[in-house]
Amino acid sequence: MAAVKIGIVGLGRLGKRHAENLKHKVSGAALVAACSVVKEELDWARENLGIEALYSNYDQMLEEADLDAVFLVTSSAVHAEQSIKALEKGLHVFTEKPMGVDVPECQKVERVVAEHPNQVFFVGFVRRFDPSYAYAKQLIDEGVIGEPFLVRSQTVDLDEYAEFQVKFVPTSGGIFLDCNVHDIDLARWYLGSEVKSVYAKGGSYVHQAFDSVHDADNTVVLTTFDDGKMAVISASRTAFHGHDTHTEITGSKGILKIGMTPAKNRVEVFDGHGARTHCVRDFFERFHEGFLAEAQEFVNCIRENRQPIVSAFDGTKATEVGFAMTDSFQQGKEVQLHS
Amino acid sequence: MAAVKIGIVGLGRLGKRHAENLKHKVSGAALVAACSVVKEELDWARENLGIEALYSNYDQMLEEADLDAVFLVTSSAVHAEQSIKALEKGLHVFTEKPMGVDVPECQKVERVVAEHPNQVFFVGFVRRFDPSYAYAKQLIDEGVIGEPFLVRSQTVDLDEYAEFQVKFVPTSGGIFLDCNVHDIDLARWYLGSEVKSVYAKGGSYVHQAFDSVHDADNTVVLTTFDDGKMAVISASRTAFHGHDTHTEITGSKGILKIGMTPAKNRVEVFDGHGARTHCVRDFFERFHEGFLAEAQEFVNCIRENRQPIVSAFDGTKATEVGFAMTDSFQQGKEVQLHS
Amino acid sequence: MAAVKIGIVGLGRLGKRHAENLKHKVSGAALVAACSVVKEELDWARENLGIEALYSNYDQMLEEADLDAVFLVTSSAVHAEQSIKALEKGLHVFTEKPMGVDVPECQKVERVVAEHPNQVFFVGFVRRFDPSYAYAKQLIDEGVIGEPFLVRSQTVDLDEYAEFQVKFVPTSGGIFLDCNVHDIDLARWYLGSEVKSVYAKGGSYVHQAFDSVHDADNTVVLTTFDDGKMAVISASRTAFHGHDTHTEITGSKGILKIGMTPAKNRVEVFDGHGARTHCVRDFFERFHEGFLAEAQEFVNCIRENRQPIVSAFDGTKATEVGFAMTDSFQQGKEVQLHS
Amino acid sequence: MAAVKIGIVGLGRLGKRHAENLKHKVSGAALVAACSVVKEELDWARENLGIEALYSNYDQMLEEADLDAVFLVTSSAVHAEQSIKALEKGLHVFTEKPMGVDVPECQKVERVVAEHPNQVFFVGFVRRFDPSYAYAKQLIDEGVIGEPFLVRSQTVDLDEYAEFQVKFVPTSGGIFLDCNVHDIDLARWYLGSEVKSVYAKGGSYVHQAFDSVHDADNTVVLTTFDDGKMAVISASRTAFHGHDTHTEITGSKGILKIGMTPAKNRVEVFDGHGARTHCVRDFFERFHEGFLAEAQEFVNCIRENRQPIVSAFDGTKATEVGFAMTDSFQQGKEVQLHS
Repeated sequence: MAAVKIGIVGLGRLGKRHAENLKHKVSGAALVAACSVVKEELDWARENLGIEALYSNYDQMLEEADLDAVFLVTSSAVHAEQSIKALEKGLHVFTEKPMGVDVPECQKVERVVAEHPNQVFFVGFVRRFDPSYAYAKQLIDEGVIGEPFLVRSQTVDLDEYAEFQVKFVPTSGGIFLDCNVHDIDLARWYLGSEVKSVYAKGGSYVHQAFDSVHDADNTVVLTTFDDGKMAVISASRTAFHGHDTHTEITGSKGILKIGMTPAKNRVEVFDGHGARTHCVRDFFERFHEGFLAEAQEFVNCIRENRQPIVSAFDGTKATEVGFAMTDSFQQGKEVQLHS
Repeated sequence: MAAVKIGIVGLGRLGKRHAENLKHKVSGAALVAACSVVKEELDWARENLGIEALYSNYDQMLEEADLDAVFLVTSSAVHAEQSIKALEKGLHVFTEKPMGVDVPECQKVERVVAEHPNQVFFVGFVRRFDPSYAYAKQLIDEGVIGEPFLVRSQTVDLDEYAEFQVKFVPTSGGIFLDCNVHDIDLARWYLGSEVKSVYAKGGSYVHQAFDSVHDADNTVVLTTFDDGKMAVISASRTAFHGHDTHTEITGSKGILKIGMTPAKNRVEVFDGHGARTHCVRDFFERFHEGFLAEAQEFVNCIRENRQPIVSAFDGTKATEVGFAMTDSFQQGKEVQLHS
Repeated sequence: MAAVKIGIVGLGRLGKRHAENLKHKVSGAALVAACSVVKEELDWARENLGIEALYSNYDQMLEEADLDAVFLVTSSAVHAEQSIKALEKGLHVFTEKPMGVDVPECQKVERVVAEHPNQVFFVGFVRRFDPSYAYAKQLIDEGVIGEPFLVRSQTVDLDEYAEFQVKFVPTSGGIFLDCNVHDIDLARWYLGSEVKSVYAKGGSYVHQAFDSVHDADNTVVLTTFDDGKMAVISASRTAFHGHDTHTEITGSKGILKIGMTPAKNRVEVFDGHGARTHCVRDFFERFHEGFLAEAQEFVNCIRENRQPIVSAFDGTKATEVGFAMTDSFQQGKEVQLHS
Repeated sequence: MAAVKIGIVGLGRLGKRHAENLKHKVSGAALVAACSVVKEELDWARENLGIEALYSNYDQMLEEADLDAVFLVTSSAVHAEQSIKALEKGLHVFTEKPMGVDVPECQKVERVVAEHPNQVFFVGFVRRFDPSYAYAKQLIDEGVIGEPFLVRSQTVDLDEYAEFQVKFVPTSGGIFLDCNVHDIDLARWYLGSEVKSVYAKGGSYVHQAFDSVHDADNTVVLTTFDDGKMAVISASRTAFHGHDTHTEITGSKGILKIGMTPAKNRVEVFDGHGARTHCVRDFFERFHEGFLAEAQEFVNCIRENRQPIVSAFDGTKATEVGFAMTDSFQQGKEVQLHS
């Protein structure tokens, strides 16, 4: 079977990672084009990946390049628009999360996806493709913990990135949309249910600057699902030990915990600081296997003519709940979701 | 210095534990009297501990026995009344938690305690005296994690005790008062702040019987403090691995986690089930060191003429917040506390 | 039943610990006399424990004091002699390890013990009474790991004590007798077999001073047992993280590991140093439960007229194997034990 | 730069893994030919990897195929011969361990490698390329643990493979050559020193069948190095929990431990069996990252005209020490190595 011809769009830090994976490690993929508004990024693609078809204009790429699929690693604001254009050109689409920056936009993507049922549409909820998160799902499906009813999930970034993240709030959408969309998606996935209400609390405990942009550096959301199940979804931008993303699922027969200590690897150090483990520094380091696995799965879906486990509906839901959390936090009260 | 003459009241499972500690392991204590309405318990005290002064009536014991202090391990409903009587007799008082079963009762105890400033009054918040919980407080006081602003704390019992606990709901006051008073006390202690509002959710996910008594088998409460700090306080009565009481404190410079795996001891087993640790089965096993340490500290306070780190006010607050949680859970909405 | 009247001998750091346990925490014990050649230690016993019968001369104490038992926490050189004298006076004897500083001396103790079968003789192999080591024995006896055939056991002290330990070599007998007698005893206990040969290696890798006294700061001994079972017994005096005493037992169906991380308690710290656990600093801290449990068991044996699980033969064997290890290390070759 | 044209030789389980990596995941590699004496394996290569140049005869492949390099995943007995032939044809060579099945053969390979200094020769000591083992080396080089002087390293396979391994002894060379060559290589690498003597013990504790082929199912070797450093190298074929390969390095300032619990991934299960981690089942699962990394490094070395960190000398040493261990075990005494 011929390789899937892919054009990557956006070559920032994560874009470069995806591009390298698609070029070298994803079986059945041919990375044939790259698009970026940053000239240096296109130079990098030519020099390091040998890509000849380079574009500074997305529309032009869609028009001219010989593509089966696009891989969108652009800024959140354009994910929906770029997804729609590519779908309407008949291309398969991988888009980084979030699928869109507001709910109507997400729903529009959903409609366009529905109109193109033979094209693969893939939202990059990378954690579902991390080996540990995927293994937990498998154990749940095997009944190891009985019926799951409570998820606790958190996304935690190193404190040293906080200064950058403050500036990024206007485009990231704030801590709930930037950090917690993954946790929301995981909670829905593991519980098999939809969010009914959210109650968010938090504050700028370490960096006052978040307060001035109506955001927070640490938050907790108590989330209720339609069938009474619960999730506690937290975020922090003030960790000193590492990118501490972890998740617990409690069921009627047992509990699964995923990544409670964000160990960098299998090495432990015993010295004057105690018995300790070095930690992963960021999501790049933590989820390098997941980034590769999701890209491989995207290509496999295309080649095997099937849809991924993450749907456009999942993309909408994550954004919808993220906005409800933001509303709850800013209004200081519980927010109901419209079903 | 003469030993502190103590009369123990209540000789159920926990009462027996306390009695044995006071008899054999608490320096400076003389367990000289015992009171119980159960004849077999008094027989046990005579035969096993050699106690001669045995009473089936509390008032009679206060009247007749030569005591410096009472140690109350009776049912929750009589803690307040018995505390007050002993205080008014001029005795030092140790009472198991909760200090009282409603807030007015607790406040009455507080007033009587205030009227007897030279008597020691000690509420059995045993976790403060567990070596690990105490060590965490010491690290916080040393500034190891900067300013603490978020506590997560849970009390989790084995599923096999659920059937018993259902029957016990009318006297225990339900899951928030029975399990979470300890977590509430810890959160207040570590954060150094008072609870402002609670938002409780939960359900009878495993044992429907809890539902029929307006209680739950698994709960989560998002708790907000006066200064904007937060606590996530959880309870579960459906664990299969052990008595999983654990607590995390997040501060501006680091995180402390206490007891994340409720290991029975330092033994690990590597066999066909994987790499695993056996777990403690109940709070007796988990907190055996704390039960001894708190009794020793009670006696030390008496002999050194000082008050303990746990005050009657702490006892009132735990009960007050526990009731607010119960209200929030039953009403399905956030509840504000009156300051 | 009357309390067992005990005279403690030696009130150094460990002696004080034992004295406090006997005074306050050991049920059925009455600490009635103390003996020390150091005046300050006797003063301490009078002031802190209220002991009246104080002796600077062991023989005089045996002659004058009203005792049921002695508790020997003296220097290794006099353990055997003092044990024999007390046994011949009709007293029960607890002696700290080692039972004697050479094999003939140990064998003499064994003979005297055999002549006094109604007196309890107890060698302080404290690890057998540590809750985790005892639990491992129980699991082995239950068949959890099948037939045990390989023990790995180590005793590791903090580097900061090395300077002191160098000076102590002439009286401690060196690293094998000072540190490894416990590991030898554990290996014999868990494997249920006797040592046939030892092959010891090591060196002064960090502190050259050990070399000058024909000792080492780190050693490993491959030990073979009569039935072909094995033990790897190690010692180190150069740890920076804590008193890292740990033991593994491999059997035909599984493995038990005891104390792989010498955690101080259940607290974990997550900060700029990673995810870490503080460690116990010395054997006092690590084995405080064992010290109490062995003293209680000594008293229980006396009161219940039975012998402990540790025999004089065990004491001889540990010393015998310790000497064989020393010989092997100094001669640079395998040493066979005479059976 | 043109891709490195590689012919793979041997397509058993590990050969298939390498082939898939070379085909899909190794940047700069072109897997253009495959050789196997098993027809089904060649069919697999054609159908799954699309390889056209298929050979049942190694010499014919060397003669006819357009290759830059060979990748030898054949039986141990032919590694040396095939390496030499390829080197003499001017090809770069990757060979699985062991480099040869006796020392003279290894030394012959060394000589031929020396005669072809511009060709890359790479022995597959995969653990050096595992992220955790490589990170430990980096920490050692940074001085984190001071001067390393003691390595403990073990290779442990699941008991369920024992029956197969008994049959495999004649070709694998026994437990020391089959399992411990990796540990030997790691000890030399981390200690930076050469083995001076070995003292091996062991037995057939679980499977008598190993005894009948003069092998063992569990072994321990105390290994001394030229500068007095030590290694304890163990092997077991009777684990029930997983492929438990782990390594400790003790230095003058601290200790590193690698992979003490062979966790399958980051998931922990809390249920009726306790708090536990599932384990990796075999070296395929444990070292999947290492297999990819070493193949990538092989290709990088070729493209960057440099030699790998593993030399032919390392290959000889591992085999030499493995034989010395076997001799020591079979003769029951220490064996000196000729320097």
